[in-house]
Amino acid sequence: MLTNLEHVGIAVRDLAASNELFAKLLNSPPYKAEAVEAEGVTTSFFRVNESKIELLEATRPDSPIAKFIEKKGEGIHHLAFEVDDIRAEMQRLSGEGFTLLSDEPKRGADNKWVCFLHPKGTNGVLVELCQEIQEGIN
Amino acid sequence: MLTNLEHVGIAVRDLAASNELFAKLLNSPPYKAEAVEAEGVTTSFFRVNESKIELLEATRPDSPIAKFIEKKGEGIHHLAFEVDDIRAEMQRLSGEGFTLLSDEPKRGADNKWVCFLHPKGTNGVLVELCQEIQEGIN
Repeated sequence: MLTNLEHVGIAVRDLAASNELFAKLLNSPPYKAEAVEAEGVTTSFFRVNESKIELLEATRPDSPIAKFIEKKGEGIHHLAFEVDDIRAEMQRLSGEGFTLLSDEPKRGADNKWVCFLHPKGTNGVLVELCQEIQEGIN
Repeated sequence: MLTNLEHVGIAVRDLAASNELFAKLLNSPPYKAEAVEAEGVTTSFFRVNESKIELLEATRPDSPIAKFIEKKGEGIHHLAFEVDDIRAEMQRLSGEGFTLLSDEPKRGADNKWVCFLHPKGTNGVLVELCQEIQEGIN
């Protein structure tokens, strides 16, 4: 089950400058920064009620975020929905005809298991499913 | 104050088809549809916890949604943040250097006063401020 709009990911060129900008916009500073080596990104997070804004800066030219900015410019990159059981949800959505970008959940930022859906099957929206990692349980 | 990520707006070509698609994705049907004549759009809304997904289809070629799709294709169009006092927030953000797309709040979908910020000042993200209309009060 999709239980929450967990975060919106925004691709930016300069994380330090965008942290300042979004701190002004949201009237609140980012509460954490985190690098995700495997994805070639540095991220920062802002809270807004039950959701988060995640800013993403590429750390290398072959990062998905670098390619996205090269093609489309800065802007909204993905929507992430929290799920209560990521494997069950991956199976349900695959059965409904959505294309998963990985067969297994991957470790993402913010202590989450994540799986993306191909945007061609979702009106151009890159959708992430995410579930909190609880060591020893999932 | 920005109190909630109220909704994410997604531009689609065919609202009926996208309603089916997002009903499968979110495992829940849209709870309402609404036309906003002034903006040249028909919209539908899905709930996910405290946020909504708003699908937008253009009703005429000069609609902002038609222009968006022509330029960028289908996809995420805007992020809307709920505010407790839209005029105060417009003043605060203007003072912080953000560019407002209207001097006064306008009537938007879903019984809201709305005001957009220019995406050039927000890393390419079209940001909407929105506040519930309470007749006789605001």
